[in-house]
Amino acid sequence: MFPKNCWYVACTPDELEEKPLGRRICNESMVFYRDGEGQVAALEDFCPHRGAPLSLGFMEDGNLVCGYHGLKMGSDGKTVSMPGQRVQNFPCIRRYPVHERYGFIWVWPGDADKADVATIPHQHWAESSDWAYGGGLYHIQCDYRLMIDNLMDLTHETYVHASSIGQKEIDEAPVATKTEGDTVITSRFMDHVMPPPFWQNALQGNDLPTDQPVDRWQICRFTPPAQVMIEVGVALAGKGGYDAQPQHKASSIVVDFMTPETETSIWYFWGMARNFKPEDQALTDTIREGQGIIFSEDLDMLERQQQNLLAYPERRLMKLNIDSGGVQSRRLLDNLIKAEQV
Amino acid sequence: MFPKNCWYVACTPDELEEKPLGRRICNESMVFYRDGEGQVAALEDFCPHRGAPLSLGFMEDGNLVCGYHGLKMGSDGKTVSMPGQRVQNFPCIRRYPVHERYGFIWVWPGDADKADVATIPHQHWAESSDWAYGGGLYHIQCDYRLMIDNLMDLTHETYVHASSIGQKEIDEAPVATKTEGDTVITSRFMDHVMPPPFWQNALQGNDLPTDQPVDRWQICRFTPPAQVMIEVGVALAGKGGYDAQPQHKASSIVVDFMTPETETSIWYFWGMARNFKPEDQALTDTIREGQGIIFSEDLDMLERQQQNLLAYPERRLMKLNIDSGGVQSRRLLDNLIKAEQV
Amino acid sequence: MFPKNCWYVACTPDELEEKPLGRRICNESMVFYRDGEGQVAALEDFCPHRGAPLSLGFMEDGNLVCGYHGLKMGSDGKTVSMPGQRVQNFPCIRRYPVHERYGFIWVWPGDADKADVATIPHQHWAESSDWAYGGGLYHIQCDYRLMIDNLMDLTHETYVHASSIGQKEIDEAPVATKTEGDTVITSRFMDHVMPPPFWQNALQGNDLPTDQPVDRWQICRFTPPAQVMIEVGVALAGKGGYDAQPQHKASSIVVDFMTPETETSIWYFWGMARNFKPEDQALTDTIREGQGIIFSEDLDMLERQQQNLLAYPERRLMKLNIDSGGVQSRRLLDNLIKAEQV
Repeated sequence: MFPKNCWYVACTPDELEEKPLGRRICNESMVFYRDGEGQVAALEDFCPHRGAPLSLGFMEDGNLVCGYHGLKMGSDGKTVSMPGQRVQNFPCIRRYPVHERYGFIWVWPGDADKADVATIPHQHWAESSDWAYGGGLYHIQCDYRLMIDNLMDLTHETYVHASSIGQKEIDEAPVATKTEGDTVITSRFMDHVMPPPFWQNALQGNDLPTDQPVDRWQICRFTPPAQVMIEVGVALAGKGGYDAQPQHKASSIVVDFMTPETETSIWYFWGMARNFKPEDQALTDTIREGQGIIFSEDLDMLERQQQNLLAYPERRLMKLNIDSGGVQSRRLLDNLIKAEQV
Repeated sequence: MFPKNCWYVACTPDELEEKPLGRRICNESMVFYRDGEGQVAALEDFCPHRGAPLSLGFMEDGNLVCGYHGLKMGSDGKTVSMPGQRVQNFPCIRRYPVHERYGFIWVWPGDADKADVATIPHQHWAESSDWAYGGGLYHIQCDYRLMIDNLMDLTHETYVHASSIGQKEIDEAPVATKTEGDTVITSRFMDHVMPPPFWQNALQGNDLPTDQPVDRWQICRFTPPAQVMIEVGVALAGKGGYDAQPQHKASSIVVDFMTPETETSIWYFWGMARNFKPEDQALTDTIREGQGIIFSEDLDMLERQQQNLLAYPERRLMKLNIDSGGVQSRRLLDNLIKAEQV
Repeated sequence: MFPKNCWYVACTPDELEEKPLGRRICNESMVFYRDGEGQVAALEDFCPHRGAPLSLGFMEDGNLVCGYHGLKMGSDGKTVSMPGQRVQNFPCIRRYPVHERYGFIWVWPGDADKADVATIPHQHWAESSDWAYGGGLYHIQCDYRLMIDNLMDLTHETYVHASSIGQKEIDEAPVATKTEGDTVITSRFMDHVMPPPFWQNALQGNDLPTDQPVDRWQICRFTPPAQVMIEVGVALAGKGGYDAQPQHKASSIVVDFMTPETETSIWYFWGMARNFKPEDQALTDTIREGQGIIFSEDLDMLERQQQNLLAYPERRLMKLNIDSGGVQSRRLLDNLIKAEQV
C-alpha cells in the first residue's frame, strides 16, 4: 500500500550515464534515460511492437531505440519511427512524469495530469555549496513502511549499530513526537554523554577532542510519501547542544529516500549531507563508506522482520511511545492512500 | 500451448552416452536411454515402485535399473524384474515413441498410437556426406513461439547481433512471406551490400575476397511443430546471388529446433549445416563456437520479453509485415492444437 | 502431516554455544537458547514489539534480548523489561516445552500441557560410557516419511550405497517386519557373505580379518514420531551372528532422527553409536566422516523422489514386502495424527 500520486526518487544521474535504466517502481516497470537535450524521460519498459523491455535498447539521436527490432520511441510514449514501417497508428506506451532535481531523478508513478514539479520535497542541503552529499543505494526485501518505522525510531541504534553509532543512553533519553502539517518530527536529546565511535571520528575530523562528554541530538523528519531526514550531531557538553556554535560541534543530515519497488521491496537511497569541509571529496568518500557499512546492518533485520510479518499476518504490532514516529508517519500515508482510492 | 501428437527433438546422442538422461518435454518428465540393442527408449521418469526418478538409475543387460531399490524396467514400460519380487502385476509406466534419425533423438509426447516415424521432418543436409553439421543446446525461459517469432523475423539481427551478422541493410530490404502447405517461408534478399564480420569470415574460409560488395539472402522455413531452417548466404555481387555458382559464394543452413519444456521454457537445439569443406572438423568447431556466442545474445532478450508478457497478459502484440513469418507459423500451430482438442 | 504432541530432536548443544538458534520445526518458527542457569529454552521466534526474529538477538543476564530495540524476553514467553517501557501488559509469545537429554535438545511443538519429559524416547547408548556417538545434520527437501521409508527398507543400500555398505546379498535376503507396541521392527540376516568396504574397515578396526565370510545383520526399529535406530553388524561366519561374542564381531547402532521442518523438508540428525573403543575420539571422527559421505548419497534421491510425488499427486506408491517397515511405521503415525485431530 503506497500512494502513487506523488514524487519518488527513482534513481541517481550516474545510473543513466551508460545506457537506459530499467527499474520497477510502485509495481510499474519503467525505463529511464536522457533524451537528446539531456532531459530525463521515463516510460513503460515495454515496446509496443512485441513487448521487449526497452531498457535493453540504446539511445540514438536522442530517442530510445528498442534493442530487438529497432522501434524508435519518443519520450512522450509515441513511436517516432521504425525501419520500413508507418508508425502513426502504433499504440502509445505510458510516460511517467519525471524530473531531475537536488541530485536525484524523481518520478510520479500515478496520474500524470496531477504531477507538479513544485511539489517535489524541498532539499535545502542540495542547493548550497556550503553542503556536501555522499550516498548509496540498497535493494531491500521489505515494505517501505518498515524502513520508515526503522528511521523514525532510532532506539534501534543501540542494538543494530552497537559498534558505531549506538550507545546505551539512546534508550534512556525520552523521545518527543509531533505532526506538523505534512511532517512528522521525532526528536531525542542526550546531554552529557560520551561520544560513540562514529561521532569520535566526526569530532576528530572537526579538530575537536574525542574523549570529552558531548550533548548529542537526533531530530527525525518524515515527509510523505517516503523520505526521512535526520539531523544528527554532537556538541561539546555545555556549549549549547543543537544550538552550539559550529566550532564546538559536529553535525550532519542523514538523508533517506525509500522508494517502493513492490509491496514488499524497496530501493533505499541513503546518504549524508554535511555543512563542514564541503569541498573535501576524500572526507565525503570516507563518510559514505562508513555509513554504507552501518546502514547495511539494518538489511538482514528488516528482511527477516518482513518474513515474520508475512508468516503471521494476523498479528498486531505494538505501538509504544518510541514507535510514535512510525505510527504518525503511517497515519499520514494512510490518509494519502485513502484519498487516492476515492 | 503446443501440439503433442508430433515429433520433437528430445536430445542428441552424446547426451545418452554415459547414463540415462532425464528431461522434461511438453510438461512430461521423461527418461531417455539406449536399450541392449542400442535402440533409444523413452519412458516416464517415474519408478512405479516408489516414484523415484528412473534417470538416477543405470543400465544393466540392456534394461534400465532404478537406482533406489533395483527395479528393472523394460523399454515397453513394463517391469522386467525386481530382486525378491514377482512383478507381473506391477503397474506399467508410460512409454513414449522415440526414434533416432538425422543425428537427433526424436520423441512423440502425445498419443503413441498415432506416432509414425515417417512423419519425422526430413533433413536433407543430414543424409549426405557433402554436408557437415555442428550445433549446441540452450535452455531458455520462454514460450517456444517467441523463439519461432525470433527466427522468422531476422530484422532483429541488426539490433541483437549488431557486431556479427547484423547490418543496417537488413532493415531496409522488404520481406516476402507465404505459407505453402505445412511450411511458412519468409525470405529477404539484400543486393550489393558489404558483408558483416561473420560473413567476411565465411568468405575468407572459402578463399573469396572480404572487402567487396555481396548479394546476401535469408530464407526462413518454419515447419510445425518447432523447427526453423534458414538458408543464409552471400555471393559476390552480380554473380547470381542465391543461384550463384558455389565458387562465388558462402552459404549454409541455420538449423533450429525449439522443443517446449513447459509453457514458458524450451530446449533450444541450434546449429549450422554447410556443404563446403564438410570434412574439416576444425572449421565445424570454429563455426559452432562463433554461432554459440551469437545465438546466446538472444537469450536475455527472449527471457525478459517473456517476463514482460507474463506481467501484462492483456496486451496484444503488434503484427507488422516483418512479423508475418511468426504470425503465419502460429496460425499453423493453432490449427494443430485445435485439431488435438476436438 | 505430522503429529505435534510429541518430542522431536530440535538441535544439538553445539548449535547453541555462540548465539541463539532460529529453526523452523513442524511449521513453527522457534528460537532456542540457554537461560542464565544453562537451561535450554524455546520460544516463538517473534518479538511481540515489532515482529523481529528474536534469534537475531543476544543473551544478557540469562535473558534473550531482541536485537532490534532491546526488548528483554523471559523463557516463559513474558517480556522481562524494555528500556523506558512498562512491560506488564505486553502480549506473551508462545513457549515450547524443551528438554536436553541424551546429547540432544528435544522440543514439543504441540500442546504444552501434554508435554511430559518422561516420554522422550529412551536412548540406552547415550547413557553409558561404554558407548561413543558421532553424528551430523542434513537439511533435506523431502517429507520426513520418505526418510522413514528409506531407513526401514535397507535394500536401497545395494543401489544408493553400492560402493560402501551395499552388496547384492541384501536384495536376496528376506526381511521380517512386525509391530510391537509403538515400535516397528524390520530385520534382515545375511549369513556367510563377504563384507563390503565399510564393514571391512570396521572389522580391521576391531583387529579382525577382512577377507573372510561374515554373518551380517540389520535390525531397524522405528519409534514415533521420527526416530529410526538400526542395529547393524557383522560377525565372522559361524560364530553366532548377531549373538556372537564381542571379540568375533563389529557392530554399531545407526541413529536417525528426522525432524519435520515443513511438510516437505526435514532436519535430519544422523549418527552412529558404537560400544567398542568408545574412548577413541579419532575413530569417532573417522566413522562420522565416512557415514556423512554415505548418508549424503541419499539426499538427491529423496529430494528428486519428493519432486516426482508432488508432480504426480494422484499416484499410489506400491507396498511390497520390503516396504512393510515404512508401511507399518506410517500406520503408527496415521494413528497419532488422527488422534490429535479429534
